[in-house]
Amino acid sequence: MTYELYYWPDIQGRGEFIRLLLEEAGADYVDVARLPARQGMGIAALMRTLDSTTIEHPPFAAPYLRAGERVIGQTANILLFLGARHGLAPRAEAGRLWAHQLQLTIADLLTEVHDCHHPIAGGLYYEDQKREAKRRAADFTANRVPKFLGYFERVLAQNPRRGGYLVGGRLSYVDLSMFQMVAGLRYAFPRTMARIEPELPGLLALHDRASARPRIAAYLASKRRLAFNEDGIFRHYPELDR
Amino acid sequence: MTYELYYWPDIQGRGEFIRLLLEEAGADYVDVARLPARQGMGIAALMRTLDSTTIEHPPFAAPYLRAGERVIGQTANILLFLGARHGLAPRAEAGRLWAHQLQLTIADLLTEVHDCHHPIAGGLYYEDQKREAKRRAADFTANRVPKFLGYFERVLAQNPRRGGYLVGGRLSYVDLSMFQMVAGLRYAFPRTMARIEPELPGLLALHDRASARPRIAAYLASKRRLAFNEDGIFRHYPELDR
Repeated sequence: MTYELYYWPDIQGRGEFIRLLLEEAGADYVDVARLPARQGMGIAALMRTLDSTTIEHPPFAAPYLRAGERVIGQTANILLFLGARHGLAPRAEAGRLWAHQLQLTIADLLTEVHDCHHPIAGGLYYEDQKREAKRRAADFTANRVPKFLGYFERVLAQNPRRGGYLVGGRLSYVDLSMFQMVAGLRYAFPRTMARIEPELPGLLALHDRASARPRIAAYLASKRRLAFNEDGIFRHYPELDR
Repeated sequence: MTYELYYWPDIQGRGEFIRLLLEEAGADYVDVARLPARQGMGIAALMRTLDSTTIEHPPFAAPYLRAGERVIGQTANILLFLGARHGLAPRAEAGRLWAHQLQLTIADLLTEVHDCHHPIAGGLYYEDQKREAKRRAADFTANRVPKFLGYFERVLAQNPRRGGYLVGGRLSYVDLSMFQMVAGLRYAFPRTMARIEPELPGLLALHDRASARPRIAAYLASKRRLAFNEDGIFRHYPELDR
């Protein structure tokens, strides 16, 4: 079966967390909205499901995944589903829920990253909420990033299986998501990260270990990996990074 | 086994979604932070786990649940765990993930409710971000509430089991959460809700049906149900409800 991933074609965004899992798993997938409209793909295909007034499980927003007859939405929920199927999450329920709990905390941090440049409305341009963005980002970089990343560093330290992974003794999708979070924060907030990275040796080692995995390294070097840019969630606006 | 729920003692907040499930299930639970400190309970007990540098699965924030030896965090994750145990979610994986997907979308809406009165920083007072709050709430009430609730109304309409529940043919924890969402939005944004309620007959019927269930009705009439207030997530600031 070929998975169909539906996400906006020009940004990493939330879709990237799913792409990283699919790439590490070596799964067969197509990134539908990045394929030509003349093949029935493209953004029109993505919108068809979002606007459907007939399907039983309509997603609220992209990303969503088609797996055979099933349509699954919400990034963390898709990872919960795929992680179990591809050996990238613990098999026992307790470990699976723990991995998911961490993923939901990563999702909370990601929402705060987004709201740094869009504190007023997703439907307005950054330029229309720049003053508010500066205020929000000042709190985010001073308080929120250190609090969240300090928490994840503590999770690594308190994991009794001392392998350097967030969950248990081997790589899970949560580690791939944490790689993406560190990479994105470094892109968007290089000054902030330079300041706090000395406190985060475990997360930095995890970032390096995840990106060195053969399939992830090949993916990152490929055209499938979109570059960070100022349309995505991680945006480098120097005025927000103090 | 007695569940221990850990959440801030003076607000409904995110903890309320878990309380509603536990009440409907008739589960045995204690609301730890609302019990006396001299019994080893209270906020100090809540903080002990959050600050622990030894436990294997530290939660990032309240609410969290203790179930025997397990500590589980993230509201939607706790509901995923409890829903399966108490017959308040579908048994099959596809239905269980669909219920969870809807719960995560409710969580997204709840975060936007919170950020209406705290668009800049959770650590600042409302009064210190009132101007930004007005701008954010204007977009929230005009665009976001109608979009989210319109989506859930569509989910009800597209559910092939025409029982008026969000998931399948019987009550799930998602319905209880939707009751809470409608009740909270009515409290915080009465003008906005009065304007859009004519478009939401399914959700309003669901709200009434959920609150009429014997255990929920008894809970809502009891002292265990805290009143909405301006320390919680749903706050009635008339200047934000236009």
